[in-house]
Amino acid sequence: MNAEIIGVGSELLLGQIANTNAQYLSKQLAEIGINVYYHTVVGDNANRLKDAIHTAQKRANLIIFTGGLGPTKDDLTKEAISQLLGKPLVTDEEALQSIELYFKKVKRVMTPNNKKQALVMEGSTILRNDYGMAPGMAIKVEEIEYMLFPGPPKELYPMYENYAKEYLLNKLEVKERIESRVLRFFGIGESQLETEIEDLLENQTNPTIAPLAGDGEVTLRLTAKHADSNIAQQMIDEVEQVIRQRVGPYFYGYNQTSLQEELMSALISKGKTIASAESLTGGLFSERLTSLSGAGAVLKGSIVCYHNEIKQHTLGVSSDTLHNYGAVSTQCAKEMAEQIRVKCSSDVGISFTGVAGPKVQEGKEVGTVFVGISVAGRETTVHHLQLTGSRQAIRQRTVRYGCHYLLKALNEEN
Amino acid sequence: MNAEIIGVGSELLLGQIANTNAQYLSKQLAEIGINVYYHTVVGDNANRLKDAIHTAQKRANLIIFTGGLGPTKDDLTKEAISQLLGKPLVTDEEALQSIELYFKKVKRVMTPNNKKQALVMEGSTILRNDYGMAPGMAIKVEEIEYMLFPGPPKELYPMYENYAKEYLLNKLEVKERIESRVLRFFGIGESQLETEIEDLLENQTNPTIAPLAGDGEVTLRLTAKHADSNIAQQMIDEVEQVIRQRVGPYFYGYNQTSLQEELMSALISKGKTIASAESLTGGLFSERLTSLSGAGAVLKGSIVCYHNEIKQHTLGVSSDTLHNYGAVSTQCAKEMAEQIRVKCSSDVGISFTGVAGPKVQEGKEVGTVFVGISVAGRETTVHHLQLTGSRQAIRQRTVRYGCHYLLKALNEEN
Repeated sequence: MNAEIIGVGSELLLGQIANTNAQYLSKQLAEIGINVYYHTVVGDNANRLKDAIHTAQKRANLIIFTGGLGPTKDDLTKEAISQLLGKPLVTDEEALQSIELYFKKVKRVMTPNNKKQALVMEGSTILRNDYGMAPGMAIKVEEIEYMLFPGPPKELYPMYENYAKEYLLNKLEVKERIESRVLRFFGIGESQLETEIEDLLENQTNPTIAPLAGDGEVTLRLTAKHADSNIAQQMIDEVEQVIRQRVGPYFYGYNQTSLQEELMSALISKGKTIASAESLTGGLFSERLTSLSGAGAVLKGSIVCYHNEIKQHTLGVSSDTLHNYGAVSTQCAKEMAEQIRVKCSSDVGISFTGVAGPKVQEGKEVGTVFVGISVAGRETTVHHLQLTGSRQAIRQRTVRYGCHYLLKALNEEN
Repeated sequence: MNAEIIGVGSELLLGQIANTNAQYLSKQLAEIGINVYYHTVVGDNANRLKDAIHTAQKRANLIIFTGGLGPTKDDLTKEAISQLLGKPLVTDEEALQSIELYFKKVKRVMTPNNKKQALVMEGSTILRNDYGMAPGMAIKVEEIEYMLFPGPPKELYPMYENYAKEYLLNKLEVKERIESRVLRFFGIGESQLETEIEDLLENQTNPTIAPLAGDGEVTLRLTAKHADSNIAQQMIDEVEQVIRQRVGPYFYGYNQTSLQEELMSALISKGKTIASAESLTGGLFSERLTSLSGAGAVLKGSIVCYHNEIKQHTLGVSSDTLHNYGAVSTQCAKEMAEQIRVKCSSDVGISFTGVAGPKVQEGKEVGTVFVGISVAGRETTVHHLQLTGSRQAIRQRTVRYGCHYLLKALNEEN
């Protein structure tokens, strides 16, 4: 089955919202082995919608619509499809009753246009809407499956999960299982990673290997198909092993994890607490860590020492260091990491100082960054980075590199 | 000009990311009066991409591509378009030099596949990429404008704003000017706001009034059309005045501003410095403030006192307060705000303490939050909030409310 997802709604074409419904449905369809080859977005215009359907009919045998099932004049998805397929609209009594019940419940007057929401195409399978008024529907006409979903995600998601998924699984003749796993890498560029595994990428069939770069990271999605899902997992294991033999040092985790989650797990498993001293990052490191529930077990606290006055008086960096080397220096990063560890009585201290831009500072270029790591009983290390990008990109990369270096240091420790 | 936006990338069809580039560009194009009639998404497949282009050529005279300009074999957007339009690819020397420079700067080896990123279509206008390697391009062939952008939003957004927008404005034979202005509100719900201005919403024609809710804020976009842009602005002024007479107390700023930007401007204009003491927010307030360039003029520093130990020993909250009232209390918020102001010798101290969840804390419900504001020479105020939502939503709303309360306090001061 090859699918096309057609999003209907002028709010999408005006950029008021992103087409997250297409993202959601694509992910769901991939999981049950349905290929999605196109997404289309069209406004609340019957002629352009019909054109889009004609185009889709030539290239897909599953056409999924989202949006345009509501009560207003703008909502014309099912009217257009009904005309095109020659399937008249009839009132679905169950849907009508539940709409009337809803208005009684919220004690509002039911305006006549709401009745329109209970109209469905004759001969279609109704997909119940447990979180809204307009039902969805599914109908097969001349070897093409059409499925209509409401636009609001809080109605669409449960409708897919509770009703549409089963409908689709019954229609699929394929009994093949699809398993996938994402490998996450940090500290290696996309092109370098691909060069290291070029032969694997060129000869991939099953499992497939899909690289994706974003946010300073690179990921590889490994996807295997097999009637037995255990065997599909083994096939992925084997490819993963080969990849990690080549670029293992840059690998840091699986699937939806992040550097800060991995860092937090590592700190918890080693029973270590941490504190941060942050200049250019302004609190971003501790903010990222405390965004995870359970941060209380590892983060004691932080000092955001944006002014040198705070570096000196609150954190305790020596005035000599600030005077002789400046705040953007190896020496300052070292003292910041050591001082915060002592101040907060934590096992680990991490520091961030540098130039986020847009202006040079102390004669140091934008992107000059020092990350200090102080661990009780070990020599303090300072990493010097030269980063590029906007102010915000530099700050975010600084924190990612900090997590990366500290993770490495913790893993080396055993 | 009628536009179609074609997003290229299998990661979109697999649902790994949402097509936020189409959203961004649609919003930008609407602002300069270009209608977007279709969005299309197609995978990294040359034949299907060519089919999508053929379809677009029949219905648009501006075709915009996003993604597929990178160094890998997957990236085939410009190769496919170049073949289709009969415009050979040639190396752009400036782009090549900047790629080589980039690799030198970050001290990484430049793999040969990176050279591919410097290839551009002969005869095209280059759109410089200030935040990445692959340049964008624009070319007109047989009455159709083609524009190619890189996929990463960090590269695409500035490329559009700094280079592509002007290119498009030059191509437009604009007669009517479209002016728009966004009014931003905080502390009022979308339905309450709409109720207050219901009659205006119902009778809108020119200017139009478009409400949009998101991220705990509500905005109204006023858009007016007129041959004279000054008159269009006056038309907007008049509607704005009526709206602000009704819901003025919730209004905080225009267009792309944010509560933290308004707060920073207010602090700068009053010549005041600030410091924050953060418990549940974990540094989010100072992180948001330092994300803005120029933060050095107002933020002295912050203490993230996640553990009570840090509240007491580093910040100086009395042990009596922690013992008798707990960390999540009016009393603790008051002392935190006062202590941080004194510790950092700032004019203003702000504090955040509360329960972000997922668990109750000190017997206090998730969402219980106290925000303290201490200003030199005035009595410290503490605001008690009861918020709902996820851990991250509670933290973000806490910071927004903090900015909102402090802005009000600063504005009352004169």
